[in-house]
Amino acid sequence: MTMTFTDAFWSRYHTLIKDEMIPYQWSVLNDEADITIDKERDDDFIPSEKSHALENLRIAAGRSNGHHYGWLFQDSDVYKWLESAANSYALTPDDSLMAMMEEVVKLIVEAQDDDGYLSTFYQIDAPHLKFRRLFESHELYCAGHLFEAAVAYYKATDDRRLLDVSEKLVACIRENFGSEEGKINGADGHQEVELGLVKLYEVTGKTEFIDLSKWFLDIRGQDPDFYKKQLKENEEMGLEQKMPGYSINPKYYQIHQTVYEQEEAVGHAVRLVYMAAAMAEVAHIRNDQKLFQAAKRLWDNIVKKRMYITGGIGSTVHGEAFTFDFDLPNDTMYCETCASIGLLYFARAMMNHDTDRAYAEIMERTLYNSIISGMALDGKHFFYVNPLESDPKAHQYDPGKSHVKPVRPSWFGCACCPPNLARTLTSLNRYVVSQNDESIAIHLYSDFQGGIEWKDETVDIILESDMPYEGKAKLSVSRVKESVTFAFREPSWSKSFTIDSSANPVESYRKNGYVYLILSEDAEISLTFDMPVIEWQSHPSVKNNRGKVAIQRGPFIYCLEEEDNGDQLHLISLKETPVSKPLEDSVLGETVFLKGRGVRTVITEDWTESLYLPYEPFETKEVELTFIPYHLWANRSKGEMRVWIDRD
Amino acid sequence: MTMTFTDAFWSRYHTLIKDEMIPYQWSVLNDEADITIDKERDDDFIPSEKSHALENLRIAAGRSNGHHYGWLFQDSDVYKWLESAANSYALTPDDSLMAMMEEVVKLIVEAQDDDGYLSTFYQIDAPHLKFRRLFESHELYCAGHLFEAAVAYYKATDDRRLLDVSEKLVACIRENFGSEEGKINGADGHQEVELGLVKLYEVTGKTEFIDLSKWFLDIRGQDPDFYKKQLKENEEMGLEQKMPGYSINPKYYQIHQTVYEQEEAVGHAVRLVYMAAAMAEVAHIRNDQKLFQAAKRLWDNIVKKRMYITGGIGSTVHGEAFTFDFDLPNDTMYCETCASIGLLYFARAMMNHDTDRAYAEIMERTLYNSIISGMALDGKHFFYVNPLESDPKAHQYDPGKSHVKPVRPSWFGCACCPPNLARTLTSLNRYVVSQNDESIAIHLYSDFQGGIEWKDETVDIILESDMPYEGKAKLSVSRVKESVTFAFREPSWSKSFTIDSSANPVESYRKNGYVYLILSEDAEISLTFDMPVIEWQSHPSVKNNRGKVAIQRGPFIYCLEEEDNGDQLHLISLKETPVSKPLEDSVLGETVFLKGRGVRTVITEDWTESLYLPYEPFETKEVELTFIPYHLWANRSKGEMRVWIDRD
Repeated sequence: MTMTFTDAFWSRYHTLIKDEMIPYQWSVLNDEADITIDKERDDDFIPSEKSHALENLRIAAGRSNGHHYGWLFQDSDVYKWLESAANSYALTPDDSLMAMMEEVVKLIVEAQDDDGYLSTFYQIDAPHLKFRRLFESHELYCAGHLFEAAVAYYKATDDRRLLDVSEKLVACIRENFGSEEGKINGADGHQEVELGLVKLYEVTGKTEFIDLSKWFLDIRGQDPDFYKKQLKENEEMGLEQKMPGYSINPKYYQIHQTVYEQEEAVGHAVRLVYMAAAMAEVAHIRNDQKLFQAAKRLWDNIVKKRMYITGGIGSTVHGEAFTFDFDLPNDTMYCETCASIGLLYFARAMMNHDTDRAYAEIMERTLYNSIISGMALDGKHFFYVNPLESDPKAHQYDPGKSHVKPVRPSWFGCACCPPNLARTLTSLNRYVVSQNDESIAIHLYSDFQGGIEWKDETVDIILESDMPYEGKAKLSVSRVKESVTFAFREPSWSKSFTIDSSANPVESYRKNGYVYLILSEDAEISLTFDMPVIEWQSHPSVKNNRGKVAIQRGPFIYCLEEEDNGDQLHLISLKETPVSKPLEDSVLGETVFLKGRGVRTVITEDWTESLYLPYEPFETKEVELTFIPYHLWANRSKGEMRVWIDRD
Repeated sequence: MTMTFTDAFWSRYHTLIKDEMIPYQWSVLNDEADITIDKERDDDFIPSEKSHALENLRIAAGRSNGHHYGWLFQDSDVYKWLESAANSYALTPDDSLMAMMEEVVKLIVEAQDDDGYLSTFYQIDAPHLKFRRLFESHELYCAGHLFEAAVAYYKATDDRRLLDVSEKLVACIRENFGSEEGKINGADGHQEVELGLVKLYEVTGKTEFIDLSKWFLDIRGQDPDFYKKQLKENEEMGLEQKMPGYSINPKYYQIHQTVYEQEEAVGHAVRLVYMAAAMAEVAHIRNDQKLFQAAKRLWDNIVKKRMYITGGIGSTVHGEAFTFDFDLPNDTMYCETCASIGLLYFARAMMNHDTDRAYAEIMERTLYNSIISGMALDGKHFFYVNPLESDPKAHQYDPGKSHVKPVRPSWFGCACCPPNLARTLTSLNRYVVSQNDESIAIHLYSDFQGGIEWKDETVDIILESDMPYEGKAKLSVSRVKESVTFAFREPSWSKSFTIDSSANPVESYRKNGYVYLILSEDAEISLTFDMPVIEWQSHPSVKNNRGKVAIQRGPFIYCLEEEDNGDQLHLISLKETPVSKPLEDSVLGETVFLKGRGVRTVITEDWTESLYLPYEPFETKEVELTFIPYHLWANRSKGEMRVWIDRD
């Protein structure tokens, strides 16, 4: 199933990715871009002078000389770039894109060792430590991204070269890892290979890939001291010196318990959701209820207790990690773009089990908010951290908020987010629609078309919609032979949902937030759903949102920016639900602004000399407020922003 | 002037310090206490196995062998202990105390090098780097504490031995530092010697000490790269290798500008206030208006924009530092006990210039709140960090709050705070009363008595009061010969203040928050001032206190604890001003509790499955609230605490 997207909203991203991001990232990976590489947080040890990612592969391939530079996972920047290039090529074939991909594919083929091993840092600078420092090596993490790139490249081009590289690397991994005596009985410090193996299985049908993915999931946490023991063994064998300052926290890596025992989402957020997504995928393929229930527990803990309203996750910069239930600070959190992308994958994987609006709405929440806020409108500047409250002064003068950047930098020393964004936004077909034995389910309304295989039939669908700004959609279904069941999500943010079919459906019913229609002939199905402006409040235990509301219209969470509303946004209280303006073309592109009435505390002269005064209600003045969709923030000027606003 | 304190409140501390803290700290300094030494924050590089402070001196003295252990400023723990022991001895002479002091004094005399140098780390382990790593060496910092100890010991015992050691060390410093060619033209990374020199001047009258103190103040910031250049020079001379990871931030050390140019309190909070206190002291002694104005600018910036209502300072753990105006987060701040002690010193030094209530009230604010909250009721457990909001879950699960400990640990690897507390609380005579050309001014009301020299007279005073719990005081003045002017502070937290003298004053007037009486004969002066419960609010720009109030009665800021009010204190809103209960003897000792009425948000069943729901006012229930004085928190159980409470 390949969908072509025609709507203005997503097409804009596809064009930006093709015309700007991919060539731009190519120049960065080649160290040819004239940019200042920013650090994702204030840390002297972050490599940030250049990317060097392709040069690392060239050195491993023997084409260049020198040392590895950058993070241990620098290879994955190349693989994610390739995956996005392949996805983009599938959407819009392009010769220059093909030429760039060809260069990378050849390089990867050449860089692989004869035994299948592939990880440039260890190949170039530490061959004696291959697979011996799994807590930080990212060897299997990079392998997972290679597999995903290989699958995308194969789907886009029918070229099997990288699938061959992948299978050879899997063989190398199987040679080294396993429960048998003498093999390594542990998993990578950063989950990802598990997801890559699922994708390899999807295109090859080879169950050994699922076996290996499940093995990595199962072995995880069986020995919480596994990484420490590896390091100790290295020391004893004289392979490396004891390094000070390693404090391996099992929870950070989710190895404190087996995946079946973990009740809470803890540790590094990206690792957790990549793991959980793989658990859900493997559980579905294997129909493994125990594994599914384990994934479901993590799902529930995240979405009911540890997720920001934007779809962001990771409440602290320290370890880029989850903290504890209901701890959702808006100005110190991490909310890494990659973590929301992982949550999207997790939601999509859960959807394999149940067509349930609960999953679709998290896909929507992340995609339209915390994920796309990761890139600027120009496609060349990126957020790693997506705060719900930003104050440039705090970024500058409070080291505890130095990671909360007020504007998107050009690139990062740790460049995981930009190519992750590109590969995700070029594979929207995974998220807008899915099919299972019961139905073809439309989750997210936009404009796309394509042929969908379902049971023994292939039907063509064309979805036209006014989303994301207005609640109308029309699905034209053709080539229906016997009977096809469609499921249409009723967005929970809509208070009315009507559905009308040009052909009488054989049957219709509602389930889990979807309307099902069984069609026996071609039809046009018209959907309308209103898009009221909604004020949300948080669970009372979320102390940082006490007395505050967040605004949503359609899929978008909104925010206030200093640009429109002046500084000291915390002085503002909302008086009534804002109203939407008509769609307009602005400096932020085509979007819908909201207008609201509020009051702003006046800082009277009494305060000139005083920091504290006896309590009396503050003097206020009425103000008009302008809200913009959250993902558009920081595209005009450097200023304050906040999502959660005091409610008067 | 030596005052004897007889009131229950401060006598309790004096007894605790004499009977518990001093012997206890003695055993810690001797590595004989059976305690777990805690880290003041989560950092692998903090030495925390033992104190070793006296052993370091023994090694330097040639009595023991071995290496230095602990922080570079470990010596200062001994000096501060000695200063508190001497102060305590002055209050209550005691043979065993004298015996301990004698041991230390001998050790210090022996440990000093022939040329006067004294700093055990450099003497033992790095003589080639003496005075060559000023950014972190703390050599002059320790010297300053030695001088303060020497002065206290001399005042308590008339024994000059440590004054001699000090003068010899000053000679060594003058030999090495100065503007002349070939001398070191920079100041210590941690200000303190400037204050120590002022004290040496006060007992010796030798102006060279003030010259040197002012020289250190003046040289500071003249070359913001001074520390980097020292390290570079060491490298070039082959004295040390280039060390990675040194990022010397000039603002941290207040060397980014000269003290005359600094408009804002930035960097490490203790350093800043020690510096500012010295500036005010030297400015007064030298009648240096330019230096005074520089101190006043820092004062205004702190008390009008950067000080917590408890008297705490330092808004971030990162660098234990100030951040920016109105940035006063309640749960991530540092508010180190030592920083409040430094602010007390600064206030006292400013008082030399003007008898102004503004200074006295900061002395009171710090002493009765953020300083004494640094110690537990048992005198054996101490806070380094004094938060205004504490949640044990956040401490445990959010690494960004790991420094905010929910209960006081026994000791710290960096043990600056406990002995600093002891030396400060045993020198209250510096703060309760002061004299200048115009008057003898009574700043803080408690029970004390002593003889005060003023102009050509010595008058005896006895102050009896019901403070800190009730607003009554009576000053008995005797031995008045010609005429003596007294100034009595009218506490700004009182709404009524009456003063009544048994003898007709020659004259009376009000100025800067003081009532002045000119007496020509002995008299009894009765003071009454009410002690209403006050709700304070913060400047609107303090976003963390938006919609919140803090409660004060008399000198005490109050707080809510989980012990009395249940958990999730953020769910509580105060409905009306609390009322005070009668003084009662409780598990917290003799104190005044406040009772208030509030409402508590009820977490209804709607929330069981939801993290976000459409906005509607929360269901609430009425609750009775119990407030305790802030300094008493965390003495009963581990639980939540907060000072700033939502106002309904």
